[in-house]
Amino acid sequence: MHAHRLTALRRLQRANNIFCLALMPGPNLHYFTGMAGHLSERPTVALLPAEGSPAMILPVLEAQAAQAHLPADVRLFAYRDEDGHEGAFQQAAAELGLAGQTIGIEYLAMRVLEARRIEQAAPGCRLLATEPWLPQLRMAKDETEIAAMRRAIDIAQRALQRLLAEGAIRPGRTELEVAADLQVALLREGSQAEAFTPIVVAGPNSALPHAGPSARPMAAGEPVTLDWGAVYDGYRSDLTRTYVLGRPSADIRRIYDTVLAANEAGRLAGRPDLPAEEVDRAARRVIAAAGYGEYFIHRTGHGLGLETHEPPYMVEGNPEPLRAGVTYTVEPGVYVPGLGGVRIEDDVLITATGHETLSTLPREMVSL
Amino acid sequence: MHAHRLTALRRLQRANNIFCLALMPGPNLHYFTGMAGHLSERPTVALLPAEGSPAMILPVLEAQAAQAHLPADVRLFAYRDEDGHEGAFQQAAAELGLAGQTIGIEYLAMRVLEARRIEQAAPGCRLLATEPWLPQLRMAKDETEIAAMRRAIDIAQRALQRLLAEGAIRPGRTELEVAADLQVALLREGSQAEAFTPIVVAGPNSALPHAGPSARPMAAGEPVTLDWGAVYDGYRSDLTRTYVLGRPSADIRRIYDTVLAANEAGRLAGRPDLPAEEVDRAARRVIAAAGYGEYFIHRTGHGLGLETHEPPYMVEGNPEPLRAGVTYTVEPGVYVPGLGGVRIEDDVLITATGHETLSTLPREMVSL
Repeated sequence: MHAHRLTALRRLQRANNIFCLALMPGPNLHYFTGMAGHLSERPTVALLPAEGSPAMILPVLEAQAAQAHLPADVRLFAYRDEDGHEGAFQQAAAELGLAGQTIGIEYLAMRVLEARRIEQAAPGCRLLATEPWLPQLRMAKDETEIAAMRRAIDIAQRALQRLLAEGAIRPGRTELEVAADLQVALLREGSQAEAFTPIVVAGPNSALPHAGPSARPMAAGEPVTLDWGAVYDGYRSDLTRTYVLGRPSADIRRIYDTVLAANEAGRLAGRPDLPAEEVDRAARRVIAAAGYGEYFIHRTGHGLGLETHEPPYMVEGNPEPLRAGVTYTVEPGVYVPGLGGVRIEDDVLITATGHETLSTLPREMVSL
Repeated sequence: MHAHRLTALRRLQRANNIFCLALMPGPNLHYFTGMAGHLSERPTVALLPAEGSPAMILPVLEAQAAQAHLPADVRLFAYRDEDGHEGAFQQAAAELGLAGQTIGIEYLAMRVLEARRIEQAAPGCRLLATEPWLPQLRMAKDETEIAAMRRAIDIAQRALQRLLAEGAIRPGRTELEVAADLQVALLREGSQAEAFTPIVVAGPNSALPHAGPSARPMAAGEPVTLDWGAVYDGYRSDLTRTYVLGRPSADIRRIYDTVLAANEAGRLAGRPDLPAEEVDRAARRVIAAAGYGEYFIHRTGHGLGLETHEPPYMVEGNPEPLRAGVTYTVEPGVYVPGLGGVRIEDDVLITATGHETLSTLPREMVSL
């Protein structure tokens, strides 16, 4: 239990006139209660009224694990597989008096299934997005959280160094082989879960955002982009490096230098009260000046914590001021269709006076 | 592209009076188009009208990967990070004429975010659950799918045999250590993704459904339950075995024999046209007769395919007839609070004349 976090949540909840919060298993519930549940076809919803005891709708087979994390006065509405979940929603809504009330939900986490069940069980209720205010509570990390982030970054960095030491990234091997090695190395170095499936993409796909590794063998002269992360106590790291297999072309060398400078400009911009969009502008300016503006097709970064992608987003149009304790990525990239490209990503912390780049893997071009 | 699957989908869509389907990245979209997308904070929705070309709302950085899987006439509504997604929803809804129409969605996959955006962009539309009919199309597997399932089962079995050969499951080691070894072995044997985080739970937690592995060292005399699976071409396996570290107590021995008999009874019940609930009854009868009925707190199994849990569910009250090609788990378990328990899970295929148990790992009690 995280009593002070729940207190802060209730204060903000009342300020936003939310009669009851309905949270899904996931990062918010983890943050406020320590409960690490997972989404399944069996709906699970935590109900946190602004006044009174919390409640939870859940399958009976999750009840024991849930009770270990929830306050002693929690009211459990547990349902058995053979009975289905609708009765539990009805009972919970009646006992908490949800009909006609405002209910705060996570638009990005709650499924239509749970939303419809709440609407049916609480006629006249209004489901309001908590996204405009709830992420504020999680944005600035405390020392325990930052320590976990450092561990997650350390694990990820050691995993990659293991691959480099083993010579695992070399021409002739496939992207999928290297990606599997990276997954194994992350587990061996102590990652407690998969932050996300590692991306390993070479040649024409290098730096292609969100591409998946393929069975294509990597070839000499190609850039290869690795985008990977680890998890420690729920906190995530997210790193990207681009290596070159042998001698790079002049194009790739020029792109590399540009992206490296953009990464540095983006990182160095970080300081308290800076609008998040300014990080994006700092990195984008460098890439645009080098003539690659049209090939930088994504935002410069995103908040990082219990989620791999979370607020604040480093994107044009986001005036959210960075505050001390905010952790985020800086990951400019240039991807030229047919040619490939370069992406370099680091994890940054806003300090009381400026910033600290938490990730320390060398960024200079390395030929493998 | 899977043209014949899309044809079958459109036929059923028209029969259910759905003007347009709105599918999320996930197993259905994978099944009908081959596209393996993932959920993120950037909404992605495929729109499949009953008549005319499909469309897709997606971030611009996913456009290239999506086009490789979608029909040539697909209309992409791609949005840039700095512009946000709302305009793309508006344009798509206008071009497809969604206002006032019936739109079929996945209640178990679509988030409130996407549902609200569709409702805002298509005033007067009605979002209807596809769950009553769409899963029918995926339930009976074809030969290619069954071959992939066999590979996924083979990978999972070989991963466990690797642990047994290495003596990795022994007193003194922690549940977390064994779970990490199992994850590594799954990758080394060729699992293409994590089906789910492996469960390794011993002693008082053994057979506790959905418990997570802990840092507690395992002790001699304890049962240890392993629940794990692999992924091949998107298809999943899901197995559970319970081993005993050294000499089991008389209680655990009796529970083991009961669960083993229930597993066999559940598997042997499988035949075409059998209502799914009869599989549950066959296994539950054995456990109830032995006096452990109150300690079998979950359904006997679930469908297995592109999802680890999918219809049909082997649960009392489900009259869904099993058809040839349906693949599902049989996983009875007895969990006695304070004592622990046993769960044994296999993967079963309904054939034209009966059933085949696809998993072949020995089921008899093994002391390690």
